[in-house]
Amino acid sequence: MTKLWGGRFSAQINPLADQLNASIAFDWRLARQDIRASLAWAEELTHIRVLNPDELSAITAGLEQILVEVDSGKFTLQPEDEDIHTAIERRLGELVGETARKLHTGRSRNDQVMTDFLLWFKEAAQEIGGALSALQLALIERAERDMEVTAPGYTHFQRAQPIRLAHWWLSHFWALQRDRAYLGFLQQQGDDLPLGSSALAGCPYPIDRQRLAQRLGFTQPSPNSIDSVANRDTAAGFLFFAALLNVHLSRLAEALILYSTAEFGFIELSDEYSTGSSIMPQKKNPDMLELIRAKAGLAIGSLAGFLSVLKGLPSAYDKDLQEDKPAVFDAADRLAILLPVMTGIVQTLTVRASKTRAALDETLLATELADFLVSQGMPFRQAHHQVGELVKTALKANLPLQTLPQAVFDAVHPALYANLERLLDPLAALERRACTGGTSSQAVAQQILAARSMLKLH
Amino acid sequence: MTKLWGGRFSAQINPLADQLNASIAFDWRLARQDIRASLAWAEELTHIRVLNPDELSAITAGLEQILVEVDSGKFTLQPEDEDIHTAIERRLGELVGETARKLHTGRSRNDQVMTDFLLWFKEAAQEIGGALSALQLALIERAERDMEVTAPGYTHFQRAQPIRLAHWWLSHFWALQRDRAYLGFLQQQGDDLPLGSSALAGCPYPIDRQRLAQRLGFTQPSPNSIDSVANRDTAAGFLFFAALLNVHLSRLAEALILYSTAEFGFIELSDEYSTGSSIMPQKKNPDMLELIRAKAGLAIGSLAGFLSVLKGLPSAYDKDLQEDKPAVFDAADRLAILLPVMTGIVQTLTVRASKTRAALDETLLATELADFLVSQGMPFRQAHHQVGELVKTALKANLPLQTLPQAVFDAVHPALYANLERLLDPLAALERRACTGGTSSQAVAQQILAARSMLKLH
Amino acid sequence: MTKLWGGRFSAQINPLADQLNASIAFDWRLARQDIRASLAWAEELTHIRVLNPDELSAITAGLEQILVEVDSGKFTLQPEDEDIHTAIERRLGELVGETARKLHTGRSRNDQVMTDFLLWFKEAAQEIGGALSALQLALIERAERDMEVTAPGYTHFQRAQPIRLAHWWLSHFWALQRDRAYLGFLQQQGDDLPLGSSALAGCPYPIDRQRLAQRLGFTQPSPNSIDSVANRDTAAGFLFFAALLNVHLSRLAEALILYSTAEFGFIELSDEYSTGSSIMPQKKNPDMLELIRAKAGLAIGSLAGFLSVLKGLPSAYDKDLQEDKPAVFDAADRLAILLPVMTGIVQTLTVRASKTRAALDETLLATELADFLVSQGMPFRQAHHQVGELVKTALKANLPLQTLPQAVFDAVHPALYANLERLLDPLAALERRACTGGTSSQAVAQQILAARSMLKLH
Amino acid sequence: MTKLWGGRFSAQINPLADQLNASIAFDWRLARQDIRASLAWAEELTHIRVLNPDELSAITAGLEQILVEVDSGKFTLQPEDEDIHTAIERRLGELVGETARKLHTGRSRNDQVMTDFLLWFKEAAQEIGGALSALQLALIERAERDMEVTAPGYTHFQRAQPIRLAHWWLSHFWALQRDRAYLGFLQQQGDDLPLGSSALAGCPYPIDRQRLAQRLGFTQPSPNSIDSVANRDTAAGFLFFAALLNVHLSRLAEALILYSTAEFGFIELSDEYSTGSSIMPQKKNPDMLELIRAKAGLAIGSLAGFLSVLKGLPSAYDKDLQEDKPAVFDAADRLAILLPVMTGIVQTLTVRASKTRAALDETLLATELADFLVSQGMPFRQAHHQVGELVKTALKANLPLQTLPQAVFDAVHPALYANLERLLDPLAALERRACTGGTSSQAVAQQILAARSMLKLH
Repeated sequence: MTKLWGGRFSAQINPLADQLNASIAFDWRLARQDIRASLAWAEELTHIRVLNPDELSAITAGLEQILVEVDSGKFTLQPEDEDIHTAIERRLGELVGETARKLHTGRSRNDQVMTDFLLWFKEAAQEIGGALSALQLALIERAERDMEVTAPGYTHFQRAQPIRLAHWWLSHFWALQRDRAYLGFLQQQGDDLPLGSSALAGCPYPIDRQRLAQRLGFTQPSPNSIDSVANRDTAAGFLFFAALLNVHLSRLAEALILYSTAEFGFIELSDEYSTGSSIMPQKKNPDMLELIRAKAGLAIGSLAGFLSVLKGLPSAYDKDLQEDKPAVFDAADRLAILLPVMTGIVQTLTVRASKTRAALDETLLATELADFLVSQGMPFRQAHHQVGELVKTALKANLPLQTLPQAVFDAVHPALYANLERLLDPLAALERRACTGGTSSQAVAQQILAARSMLKLH
Repeated sequence: MTKLWGGRFSAQINPLADQLNASIAFDWRLARQDIRASLAWAEELTHIRVLNPDELSAITAGLEQILVEVDSGKFTLQPEDEDIHTAIERRLGELVGETARKLHTGRSRNDQVMTDFLLWFKEAAQEIGGALSALQLALIERAERDMEVTAPGYTHFQRAQPIRLAHWWLSHFWALQRDRAYLGFLQQQGDDLPLGSSALAGCPYPIDRQRLAQRLGFTQPSPNSIDSVANRDTAAGFLFFAALLNVHLSRLAEALILYSTAEFGFIELSDEYSTGSSIMPQKKNPDMLELIRAKAGLAIGSLAGFLSVLKGLPSAYDKDLQEDKPAVFDAADRLAILLPVMTGIVQTLTVRASKTRAALDETLLATELADFLVSQGMPFRQAHHQVGELVKTALKANLPLQTLPQAVFDAVHPALYANLERLLDPLAALERRACTGGTSSQAVAQQILAARSMLKLH
Repeated sequence: MTKLWGGRFSAQINPLADQLNASIAFDWRLARQDIRASLAWAEELTHIRVLNPDELSAITAGLEQILVEVDSGKFTLQPEDEDIHTAIERRLGELVGETARKLHTGRSRNDQVMTDFLLWFKEAAQEIGGALSALQLALIERAERDMEVTAPGYTHFQRAQPIRLAHWWLSHFWALQRDRAYLGFLQQQGDDLPLGSSALAGCPYPIDRQRLAQRLGFTQPSPNSIDSVANRDTAAGFLFFAALLNVHLSRLAEALILYSTAEFGFIELSDEYSTGSSIMPQKKNPDMLELIRAKAGLAIGSLAGFLSVLKGLPSAYDKDLQEDKPAVFDAADRLAILLPVMTGIVQTLTVRASKTRAALDETLLATELADFLVSQGMPFRQAHHQVGELVKTALKANLPLQTLPQAVFDAVHPALYANLERLLDPLAALERRACTGGTSSQAVAQQILAARSMLKLH
Repeated sequence: MTKLWGGRFSAQINPLADQLNASIAFDWRLARQDIRASLAWAEELTHIRVLNPDELSAITAGLEQILVEVDSGKFTLQPEDEDIHTAIERRLGELVGETARKLHTGRSRNDQVMTDFLLWFKEAAQEIGGALSALQLALIERAERDMEVTAPGYTHFQRAQPIRLAHWWLSHFWALQRDRAYLGFLQQQGDDLPLGSSALAGCPYPIDRQRLAQRLGFTQPSPNSIDSVANRDTAAGFLFFAALLNVHLSRLAEALILYSTAEFGFIELSDEYSTGSSIMPQKKNPDMLELIRAKAGLAIGSLAGFLSVLKGLPSAYDKDLQEDKPAVFDAADRLAILLPVMTGIVQTLTVRASKTRAALDETLLATELADFLVSQGMPFRQAHHQVGELVKTALKANLPLQTLPQAVFDAVHPALYANLERLLDPLAALERRACTGGTSSQAVAQQILAARSMLKLH
């Protein structure tokens, strides 16, 4: 195998070392971006007369031919193709001969690969952003459907206060909204063109990098050639995006796993998104949700791993940087499955409103009693304590709170007993929470409007 | 010890469990923010007549008194103070009596702690942003000082091409610039007020959350009460910010460690930022740089650890969320030392320009020869290969490239030998890289202007 | 501040740099070990006549005096004490004068700190091993108590098959047993004495390292002086031990959190290990279990962080290695709380056997029906499928399985209906699982015996 | 696609969900182990008369036929094969018909997959242990070759004291020795047979698990059926093994990268294990070493990720556990390349002894002077300080230490000047370090013997 950098070398590379070194196993995905960047580069080389118009035509035709081969799956790799850049240059040589060997003038694989990567990222961010929006929309639609479903809200996994299920679905919308905003930030940060930085010291040819940037869809050329080839912040940022997004998904997944147990019974997953057991015929398992949860662990590990790769790298370009691509591609591929699967799960599950309603036992209304006592002039902290005592009494007697003798309530406050029924009505409790961001019907309706307008923004 | 939530409980908490549970060991740092939020909350309670003006006055005076105690270090904790919120409420009770017990009306520690945290974050981000800018400025000033220092640029730790040292210093500026932009993004994302979300379902009192937000310096109230108490994205984002920033610092640190070895000898650290050995009298060790590098590992671990804490949490508020504060405080404290120490190191080190210049052996100019051959019409790939052969010949003969017989050069190209001296001049190589982002004097000067204007932006 | 290594330095260290550099904030914990190692070292120096008997007596008396000061909390640090080694040497000088300055002969802080650390680790491993055994014992005792409690076993969070609760408690015993075995392995691996390796090249004095090792409770001297000061494997191993142990605890914690929800109601935590809410009087929250779960995240992060610190360190000793101690001390401190808290929780919780029994609905016995059909000659895969159809029929009709018409069962197999009652008896299902490791009463009793004998082994 | 667990399901699985759920993409690697375990299982089923001898023969022949197909690459997967277990059961059905459907009696994929995994692990540990030993042997042979090569030993990346290069190579041997010991521990811990645990509650058939264990090469059956299917400690332990081993490799790699810079020039990598640049013809890059270093980051991330996956899993088997295999397979595959590549690098590199010797400037002998003063009765700490002053004087005068005027030395001690030449001889310094583990020729020779005997032990 002859490497393109082989001039000064006497011996061939060891095959295992070659396998370790080669990136073609993953960077073949950048074929289309590499061709696109080369087309623009060839034009620039023509502007500065390194290529003449005929050479440009030949190279352009050759690259376009390769693009066709790539798109049709006919492009075949050779054993000596250590990366996509050399593979395409090799193929171009086969197609257009000697002229191909002029294309690498003034650039290096160091600036080339970052350019390819950012071109890829622009498209990937678009796609993932779309899948994310689709999940957000599914949450909004779910909220609209479940507006009148009352359910316990939980803290510490313990029943806390009644909420509208719609409100809970929307809580997940906003976490994803932050993820989408961060993805937008990353797109902005990844908008400096690295091409024209060469190996590290800048391009020795009078390339117009501003023009090149615009040609390739970037806002501007990168400001420092060393930083351009050393910078892996978009990759690191994307891995963080993927990790936090997946953590958000894992929180939703965990709740849905819990809600679909026999003990909760709040939801039933559709058969499309469930599996069975090889031995227990009755089982219906939430495997997809468990895997969504598990993938969050992997995403966290991948982020930590890549940052650890970057740590302490001293020179402009160290080979370690090559690890950005498998990490980022894996993360993107994971999201490309997780997002639509979660969307499908949310869309197709059945809510058991009778179950969620039945779980609203009267202890969830204890805060209402305390708030009533406040309205009667009792300091909240005292009210909280006295209602706590009532709850304890009921628990000890193993009786529902409202069945305690009137005297017990009168001892707390004379007006309490008379208001008990009203206070222990979950719907009233919901409607009392009418501030912005609360769970009353109007507050939730406004929230849905806000959420829908957020979706349209991007 | 009597807990404020003790109403329904029969037994006291186990002491070790109490120690595990208590957050006061770290959240005492939020004392000032907690008071500030309580002052605003008391005003809102007065607007809605839960407090009367006299009660407001009493509470305000009490809280301001506590603030004085906190600022003067006279505020003392009691064993039963499990967190800063209960500590301050307890003290307020001591100062103003029964009225204090009305303050917790309509809020919960769940929305309270997030409000305190975001108030703290606003200040911390300001300070860290300032320390970051100071380091960026030190890099610019260093670049201005080292404009005429030529040095090898490295890739793979191997000498690659000549650069201005100024250009290298600036490459680190841009990485930090991205960090600062991300910090700005986090400040924007953390600008929704959680207060008024109560435990999870929203506030049952007709609070004006928009007014409250403005009073406390937030843009707007948070849109969903469940998300408000579940959301730890600012903490996660800050840990990522700290990790990536520290990784950037570690890359600079590693290079400086390397450059200060006897073998490189490019820089000498000032005694202020060096240490000695307990046994080897001659040693001068770059301990600070090593620790800056090491802290990047810790920062990565802390990020991974916290994301792992968040993963799979199912309910609005789970106690696990309490781990946000020690992680974030540690990260902020680390940066509060690392940034000024790195600034000091950059400002005080001595550059040995004779050493960096001497390291520019002629092999670093091999690309220049190849580019010259391109200018003579040879395809770059062929030029690259032929110069590689020249280098191999020189290495085998153990001779400097330029001392090879003329015939060797003539065999490559007839004009090569005559141009050798010019091509092997490092300064000429620098000036040839005059594109945006390159290492020529003009390109670097423009870069410094751009960098300075970036600093003024924030 | 005068540093002990200050000979060749002209300027004082920058205060922030000093703060970054100093390890005294955490390595003061090694005071007793440092003294112990110095006592042995002084003896060795006397053997080789670097010290005379009088000097040995003086140094020994001085060190013992310092030990008293340390034990009584009277030992005070000075601003120039950058680490525990220099602090003790400084104090020794105050006590015994010039002779103290001979003690550092032939050793370095590099071998000294590793010796101190391993001495500390021997004690810490003992203590943590004890706390671990106590938790294992609590699980065995719990198993003995809950031998007759039947409960659903879960897979995928879904009810799967009946088990004895005892069996479930014991499943956690075995995970901890592996942790304890690994701790034993670490103790064995950390049993080579580093002292006598000096800075990195070995001790230039004719010390008898074998004798020194035995004097300090080590099996043998370490085999390579460079490795001795570079090696942080015991620290890394301990962090992995702590992480995996904490992960095991988190799995138990998660199940207990779930089991203590209103929806499951299988257990009730004792008030000693629960907390309440600041706003919802009825709440009883499993904070301790949540924190045990959360700490697993931190432990994972700490492990990843420290490994990332170690990655790529090139020389025998790099300052980065100093980060081993805060990481390990934190991990040990965490376990010193988590283990007894978990032990207390397991010992004091109440099992609601009526609830666990009630959860054994007949679908959990579907496998029994399939196994019966196998006993009648039907291939298992077919039996599994047919019972799956029966379950589906029952679910659609919303009826308990056993209330389906006889004809439905007869269609599957003529003997099925007659055996239904027997097959749907959970106790019979338990007893059928009588293989080693199964959930029958005899298998579990044998398991308890095996577990008890494991505990005695260590 | 018909799933084997499909009995109770009405709808087909969603294709993306199926893709997420299926493990066949990675667990096909367990085909041979799955067959082996099934062969043993079929025998047990015959012992207990679930199968008759004819059925056993048919199943055995079928499985052996599948093994042939697997080994020859002719085994083809079908779209409905979600994992290797179902794929093989499906194929067995095609080959032997109805009888195949009896094979799954009494077992579950939960115990099956853990059995397959541990069978695989036994082989993998053997292979990796072999590759590790080969690297250790290469280090020993390298040490033997480089016995007389003197070089600076480094701490903090700074020249510290002279060592034999042999001693340095061996320091890496011992780190790997600990890795190998840990691998042995893991093999011991993974020696309990899970098969016979069924889904989680134990096997309802009277299987002799002890016999089954021996048949499959395990020491004993696992003690608890729930733990058997929940336990992923071997996977976690292996990921830690891989991470720490890779960290060890990264430390060696980093040093070799550094030593092969132009500035150090201590070693030259063979062309077989180097690469060139696409643009700079003179470059010879240590890509393999950089990738070995980088992979350590990935290994750390993978460990953290998998532990994060495990954290908080509540039931015996949760689908998340499926992530053990891709993580472990990747780790094993990485090591299968990294270990032999590092072995090849160590074997083929050239040491430039003239360069390492030349780096032994006289400042590395400063400790010798201090030790001489100690031998003259001066306390070490004072000697250290005075030599430090000498070094400072020499540095200021920019002169080699030994060229300072005699008076300067006399001022320290009258005998110093006369001994200067002897004390500044690096070889003498080496030989002075003759304790166990030191760098003298005899100590290193003994160390090599010890290392060789360690290799034979396994």
